[in-house]
Amino acid sequence: MKLAVLGGGQLGRMLGLAGVPLGVEFRFLDPADTAGARVVGELIVGALSDRAAVATVAQGCDAITYEWEGVPATALADVVATHIVAPGPYALAISQDRVAEKSLCADLGLRTAPWRAADTLGELVSAVRELSPPVIVKTRRGGYDGKGQHTIARPDDAEAAWNALGACGDLIVEERVDFGRELSVIACRGRDGSTGVWAVSENRHLAGILRESHVPAVAAATQTAAEAIARRMLDALDYVGVICIELFETRDALLVNEFAPRVHNSGHWTIEGAATSQFENHVRAVLGLPLGPTDLRAGAASMLNCVGRLPDCASILRIPGAHFHDYGKAPRTGRKLGHVTVVAPDEETLEVRLAAVRAAIDDDG
Amino acid sequence: MKLAVLGGGQLGRMLGLAGVPLGVEFRFLDPADTAGARVVGELIVGALSDRAAVATVAQGCDAITYEWEGVPATALADVVATHIVAPGPYALAISQDRVAEKSLCADLGLRTAPWRAADTLGELVSAVRELSPPVIVKTRRGGYDGKGQHTIARPDDAEAAWNALGACGDLIVEERVDFGRELSVIACRGRDGSTGVWAVSENRHLAGILRESHVPAVAAATQTAAEAIARRMLDALDYVGVICIELFETRDALLVNEFAPRVHNSGHWTIEGAATSQFENHVRAVLGLPLGPTDLRAGAASMLNCVGRLPDCASILRIPGAHFHDYGKAPRTGRKLGHVTVVAPDEETLEVRLAAVRAAIDDDG
Repeated sequence: MKLAVLGGGQLGRMLGLAGVPLGVEFRFLDPADTAGARVVGELIVGALSDRAAVATVAQGCDAITYEWEGVPATALADVVATHIVAPGPYALAISQDRVAEKSLCADLGLRTAPWRAADTLGELVSAVRELSPPVIVKTRRGGYDGKGQHTIARPDDAEAAWNALGACGDLIVEERVDFGRELSVIACRGRDGSTGVWAVSENRHLAGILRESHVPAVAAATQTAAEAIARRMLDALDYVGVICIELFETRDALLVNEFAPRVHNSGHWTIEGAATSQFENHVRAVLGLPLGPTDLRAGAASMLNCVGRLPDCASILRIPGAHFHDYGKAPRTGRKLGHVTVVAPDEETLEVRLAAVRAAIDDDG
Repeated sequence: MKLAVLGGGQLGRMLGLAGVPLGVEFRFLDPADTAGARVVGELIVGALSDRAAVATVAQGCDAITYEWEGVPATALADVVATHIVAPGPYALAISQDRVAEKSLCADLGLRTAPWRAADTLGELVSAVRELSPPVIVKTRRGGYDGKGQHTIARPDDAEAAWNALGACGDLIVEERVDFGRELSVIACRGRDGSTGVWAVSENRHLAGILRESHVPAVAAATQTAAEAIARRMLDALDYVGVICIELFETRDALLVNEFAPRVHNSGHWTIEGAATSQFENHVRAVLGLPLGPTDLRAGAASMLNCVGRLPDCASILRIPGAHFHDYGKAPRTGRKLGHVTVVAPDEETLEVRLAAVRAAIDDDG
């Protein structure tokens, strides 16, 4: 079995580490010849938007997947006719358009923050009036880690936001939710329609970058509700592979914020914390293999990102239950260079270990 | 960190899979350009006995280890002066000489089957007379999976065995132990002298080839006794890395059969069944990193080898708790091509899953 992966960063690297034991060979496409996944498969250097490069990478592979949801549909235009692309182009297209994503949620009866599409300044002003400010205005497409968005407190601020976002429409306006916690649910679906859902995690961000994920995070009823959301979305998209759905937890509901059609940073804890990791199940799903169980296999687990600078490996490994993941990337401020997962039999023990890991990471932000 | 590994078979491959997340880069030396470890590091093609090739592989590496205990001392002669070789040349030399191995056990007060060295036919005949036949006569050096050994039932058979083994001396004669089970204990020791010992496993062979390993296999008192044996041997050898000590369990004792100075087939279950695998702890040890905990993290686990032919991947993955490991090797009768580890919360559940795995493997022997 041979799998083509568009993108060769840490997600590709961890897909490779999970798939090699299954006898899967990997071929990655990445613009950088230093891409972290190069150590677990063949690396072809090229742009993920390059149709010819994508065709080269796909050659002789049983399926094509990606670790970045920005892959343009045009880059896949040739290979969708000849290869299994999973998750499929429909799911990818929806994930690239915030209006389509929110519309799908509405169609499926999944709650989101109230929202409006806005293609003109007039529509933007109307949207701000109709919703309860403060609202967040975002571009429909693109944007990452909080980039490409503005908060509008009063209708008078609409024009400034309109100009700041390029004055070219294609916007979505959302009510800012007064949510308690940001959660995510990672789920997967096989080619045969079978599904698996991992424990919902609580995620903590700093400056728009995920810093920590923690499980278990919710009571059984919330887990059940999140699983229902995930399954409804997976089935509606006829999805194959792993999906991450980001949720806002308010006092009385789970609101869907957005989904990523790929393995996700908030699911890294599954490598040591679950019976089957998100990476292995993604590989299994896209190659048409049976999914593995998603049960927790630790009482509690946390994932901590190492941003900008890696901690000393030995100081992490000295902490009981801690596992170190170095992505093999050159250090740069704000760059995710690795992560630490810490598992424990119970929450109390986890807290003690977590404090030690946080002290050891002590990153530069 | 960069690690040189002499040998690039499945053990090297699994060392790589365990070490890559720690940020370790691997360079393997193997005579075959198709060696399974090629997918997790740089592969240099050459003989493991080639002093110049070993020096090339070692260049720029922080340490050198090996996945085969047959590496000749002469091949390491240059690099021992310039590099950390772990496990060290002393442990390697002892493991290559069955008389030295048994003598060490005697020195340490570790029980073995009664034995004699024999360098002449006369010494062989005397040894058979002094011990209680049947005895097994083996070459002091070399021999693998039952090759290079003969059973002698009566002193009159000694000459035939002498001739069959080359009539050149360097033999060891051992009483055949009427043992109940063959066990093994896998242990590790760090550069700082810290040690870890995994659960003792029960091993089942067929035609001299390991077929299954199973944990937990022994009561607490036996585990304690095995741990004491392992620690005594590790300390005496000033050992760094993972060791496997094969034991015979008789009615009233644990007898040391032999040890392998490397990660071992009977420890493959540790990948899914233990808090830290033998592979990760070996990498940690040889690079001077802190060892991870060796606790069981499943109620029970079994490892089943796939010999000669690989089962269908999907039929294995369909079994709950089953994990598949394909070594990426070309099929050949009698060759270890992969293994399956199956974990379960308890022994009863394991038995059910084991039966399913055995049926799916159904190998050609």
